[in-house]
Amino acid sequence: SPRKTLSIDEYFTGVRSGDTAVLARALTLVESSNPQHQLEAEELLTQLMPFTGKAIRVGITGTPGAGKSTFIEALGLQLVRAGHRVAVLAIDPSSGITGGSILGDKTRMPNLAAEPSAYIRPTASSGTLGGAARCTRESMLVCEAAGYDIVLIETVGVGQSESYVSHMTDCLVALVSPAAGDELQGIKRGLLEVVDLLVVNKADGELRTACEVAARQYRNALETITGSHAQHESKVYTASALENEGVDKVWTAVEQHYNRMQANGTLTTRRQNQNRHWLWAIVEERLRQSIYTHPAVKAIRPQLEQEVLTGAISVESAARRILDAYDLGCEL
Amino acid sequence: SPRKTLSIDEYFTGVRSGDTAVLARALTLVESSNPQHQLEAEELLTQLMPFTGKAIRVGITGTPGAGKSTFIEALGLQLVRAGHRVAVLAIDPSSGITGGSILGDKTRMPNLAAEPSAYIRPTASSGTLGGAARCTRESMLVCEAAGYDIVLIETVGVGQSESYVSHMTDCLVALVSPAAGDELQGIKRGLLEVVDLLVVNKADGELRTACEVAARQYRNALETITGSHAQHESKVYTASALENEGVDKVWTAVEQHYNRMQANGTLTTRRQNQNRHWLWAIVEERLRQSIYTHPAVKAIRPQLEQEVLTGAISVESAARRILDAYDLGCEL
Repeated sequence: SPRKTLSIDEYFTGVRSGDTAVLARALTLVESSNPQHQLEAEELLTQLMPFTGKAIRVGITGTPGAGKSTFIEALGLQLVRAGHRVAVLAIDPSSGITGGSILGDKTRMPNLAAEPSAYIRPTASSGTLGGAARCTRESMLVCEAAGYDIVLIETVGVGQSESYVSHMTDCLVALVSPAAGDELQGIKRGLLEVVDLLVVNKADGELRTACEVAARQYRNALETITGSHAQHESKVYTASALENEGVDKVWTAVEQHYNRMQANGTLTTRRQNQNRHWLWAIVEERLRQSIYTHPAVKAIRPQLEQEVLTGAISVESAARRILDAYDLGCEL
Repeated sequence: SPRKTLSIDEYFTGVRSGDTAVLARALTLVESSNPQHQLEAEELLTQLMPFTGKAIRVGITGTPGAGKSTFIEALGLQLVRAGHRVAVLAIDPSSGITGGSILGDKTRMPNLAAEPSAYIRPTASSGTLGGAARCTRESMLVCEAAGYDIVLIETVGVGQSESYVSHMTDCLVALVSPAAGDELQGIKRGLLEVVDLLVVNKADGELRTACEVAARQYRNALETITGSHAQHESKVYTASALENEGVDKVWTAVEQHYNRMQANGTLTTRRQNQNRHWLWAIVEERLRQSIYTHPAVKAIRPQLEQEVLTGAISVESAARRILDAYDLGCEL
């Protein structure tokens, strides 16, 4: 039998009272591309707004193989045992391509998934990367309103998804594996500038020494880029998520970073700038969707696509005609 | 003294006659975000259209450290020595973040850059990834009209940029380094589906055996995903760009792939579908730009942004009000 539709009030009450079944449905509502659902999600978010913003928002990025899921599970378990409520979300940069994601997968974090104070949300992989990122941000707000005081947002580097994560978190942690030479080539100047903490993971067994060497290289790279030594030395850590070593130190650094930002006012500024960023990101996404449902555009679409397919018209000229039709439609 | 402005005719004649100075200026025109330049670029592309489409379009992707620049230089030199004219372009996925790119950098391919039959275009790194990809596609068309019969488009994986490259090339080659375990974890199902050829690079010195092992693992992974053995065995190669070994075999495979697609009609279909994809990508990008220049939107922007910054209004509600203003503006 189909599930009963929930009212906004029911969503609100369920989320606020910590009902994880209602929380899951609220996140599904936020992820929906149905226009009616989007309006309801907007209304729900407006009502939840006063109860958001209280969590420490942490982004965790890293190249494939850097050990993100092991690290998040170790960190998450440590945090719930210390009395925190932890939500794990993900942004999947492969969502533009076909196929599913391995990010935010409960089966990769079985011990954390079994904890009542942890909530792991499987990634919604449909739509554009920007759309997926918007969903993750709104899911984060809903989780905050549900009382999770730490939100971990996972994504894979190198790519634009790190930029999205940096636009919604208070602290961005990059995990790297100790293959320093190759890694350093891959770590872009821009990434180093946007990352708050860098963790050389897998500092165990035979790789322990390599990790120390890599950490030193990263410190040097950061120095070169920022021109400052003292300020950034504490940005690079080594850890072994597998042996649960150094994960506590990384979290202490996250908290220090957060507390410092809170004390000097940059936390407020950072979040304000993030909100302004998302305002325009949402506008752009909604506008993008509107073109496909526009009557005048729909009317000329089959003919124009055919002309593009046969090469009768250039892609650029066809685009111009669609945009003209879009404008015209507004005047009716 | 400022350079003389070129007319569309002068751009056209210069590009068609192989004048690389005019070619460079035409590509700058294509990359411009100035609306007047965009109109001129559109007109130029329309005129050049009949002279495009004759090149073999090859995408080359790979994780950082996989040896892309060494491989492209080795391949490019081989191709120009065989009488081809080769253009090298790039899509930089870090363009959304701050800082420059190391892709498409002439200094990384000094020997190829010195060849008169090769043209290496430094990456335009401004704007969105989608915008950068559109520019690269249009630059490719201009290079084709300038007589380059092979276009190599470089990008870094993992990320959405591979999806963009697959939407503009006839053959997508992924370079991977021989650290098979980690690499395999990182190679997404979606990437394997979109890649035409997979090259385990650095098959030299101590890594030679590791490369063979990795190649076998990739073949198995492809089999598992596609459920077919024979069809995909020839998709995986090993090479050493450094020692210039196996690069020729990769190119033979690219040509075979291209010739097979040409013979059975899938080349036409692939390019037609790509054109349809870009039609809507361009529409979306132009629409996105239009919101920021819209009079009614500009009028309410400062007030709304202030309300979002102070938290007086939710990001979602503010976005709704901007979209309402955008619609209203059209009615005037």
